[in-house]
Amino acid sequence: MNAEILAVGTELLMGQIANTNAQYISARLPDVGIGVFYHSVVGDNPVRLKECLKLAFSRSDIVIMTGGLGPTQDDLTKETVASAMNRKLVLDQDSLDKMQAFFKKLNRPMTDNNIKQAYLPENSIIIRNKNGTAPGCIIEEAGKIVVMLPGPPSEMRPMLDDTVIPYFYEKSEFKLVSRFLRIFGIGESAMEDMILDLINAQTNPTIAPYAKDGEVTLRVTARYPKNDSDDDIITPVVNEIKKRLGDTVYSTENRNMEEVAAQLLVNTNTTIAIAESCTGGLVSSRLTD
Amino acid sequence: MNAEILAVGTELLMGQIANTNAQYISARLPDVGIGVFYHSVVGDNPVRLKECLKLAFSRSDIVIMTGGLGPTQDDLTKETVASAMNRKLVLDQDSLDKMQAFFKKLNRPMTDNNIKQAYLPENSIIIRNKNGTAPGCIIEEAGKIVVMLPGPPSEMRPMLDDTVIPYFYEKSEFKLVSRFLRIFGIGESAMEDMILDLINAQTNPTIAPYAKDGEVTLRVTARYPKNDSDDDIITPVVNEIKKRLGDTVYSTENRNMEEVAAQLLVNTNTTIAIAESCTGGLVSSRLTD
Repeated sequence: MNAEILAVGTELLMGQIANTNAQYISARLPDVGIGVFYHSVVGDNPVRLKECLKLAFSRSDIVIMTGGLGPTQDDLTKETVASAMNRKLVLDQDSLDKMQAFFKKLNRPMTDNNIKQAYLPENSIIIRNKNGTAPGCIIEEAGKIVVMLPGPPSEMRPMLDDTVIPYFYEKSEFKLVSRFLRIFGIGESAMEDMILDLINAQTNPTIAPYAKDGEVTLRVTARYPKNDSDDDIITPVVNEIKKRLGDTVYSTENRNMEEVAAQLLVNTNTTIAIAESCTGGLVSSRLTD
Repeated sequence: MNAEILAVGTELLMGQIANTNAQYISARLPDVGIGVFYHSVVGDNPVRLKECLKLAFSRSDIVIMTGGLGPTQDDLTKETVASAMNRKLVLDQDSLDKMQAFFKKLNRPMTDNNIKQAYLPENSIIIRNKNGTAPGCIIEEAGKIVVMLPGPPSEMRPMLDDTVIPYFYEKSEFKLVSRFLRIFGIGESAMEDMILDLINAQTNPTIAPYAKDGEVTLRVTARYPKNDSDDDIITPVVNEIKKRLGDTVYSTENRNMEEVAAQLLVNTNTTIAIAESCTGGLVSSRLTD
């Protein structure tokens, strides 16, 4: 099964925020055997949103939408999806009750525009939101699955982790497992040159390099049947790469430079003193993280 | 003119990194009168990439691509675009010379797979890369413009700022200007309720709310002719919003809580002492930032 993540919000197209929701969701889906083929972002515009939905349905089994579930007029995700799927929006009394309790707890009046958040497409699986007012939902139709989640990460993430991932885990037949090797002191092209035969020979696991500021990461991804991960096919590949690249591999656990440095200090029982001026506590902060 | 940002890279679909390039580019384009209608992300897969390109051409005037220009085998952006546009890739000797000088300076051998980075679509405007090896390019064809930039932000950003933005500025007829009001102590729905008549009445400037952890931002965006920004149509709207929302507006300059707090300390000549334990210097770091 393959998925597309469709984020809705003009604030993303204006560059006010990065689409970290797409990153978070993408990192979780392989655990339940779902490959992500596309990310899309569209604004709070019902015509273009409908167009993007149609496209997503045509090329993906699963469409996970974030954003546009809020109380304000430009929040149009549910209305547009319901219209595209010919479903009515019906009041979910439980969502309305929870919303009223939420406002009472905050000691704020609940304005009428909030009520639209309690309307959900009929016959959908409702996803409760413990950290905000907008519930999410899952709709199954004609072999396709649409998931709608709110935009704020503090609301979206627990709903994904607690409800959506377990929902997909039930359905999945296999899972993807990745290991990340972090490499410093060698360029991407020189590195590829040293392991090109491995990259060319692999189908499962696959090996993919990518470069970022000053360092290179290698991703080794294996596909396992869901209930069988005893047969470790990743470690031999990781070991062979380590043999080829030597000391330039500073982590095989996707740990960053400061984590590895801090762990080395702890292991050797070494303490350090840091005098920071322009960095304003940043070195201490990064080591503490 | 409207634009689409198409990022290429399986690492984005695996959730290894967030698409911060799309955010950065989106924040810059309104300055030169270009609205961004879509972001897309596709993996290092030539079939799906070609499909996404075709779609982008069909719905956008400008396609800005990031990623997939590197030396490794999975870097396929240029090859796919050239094939989709029926253009040959031709060797750019200057790019090859600069690449060789770059490796010499680093005292690293240049492997053969780097040479493909010096091949660019014929008749394109070449964008030099001062911080890496892969040049970018701009292609104009049949009223459409395609821009290709490398994926690493440290390479992409200066190429965008120094070459791509000035290129579009030459072509543009108007520009968009935004002001951001930061609001704390009131929910998104209650806020909208207080200014709904303003939101409904506006066409230029437009007003759009969005919520994030613990606070709300209002974006006020005006469209001006390129050479005429004397007629300030934003400030009266900002002032009216401030009048309605009172002290909950803590910044009208898109400054965050810690910036405003630090500025208040400086203005009143107040010094503070911070004792940090679990925060590991983070309070100091945020105030210093």
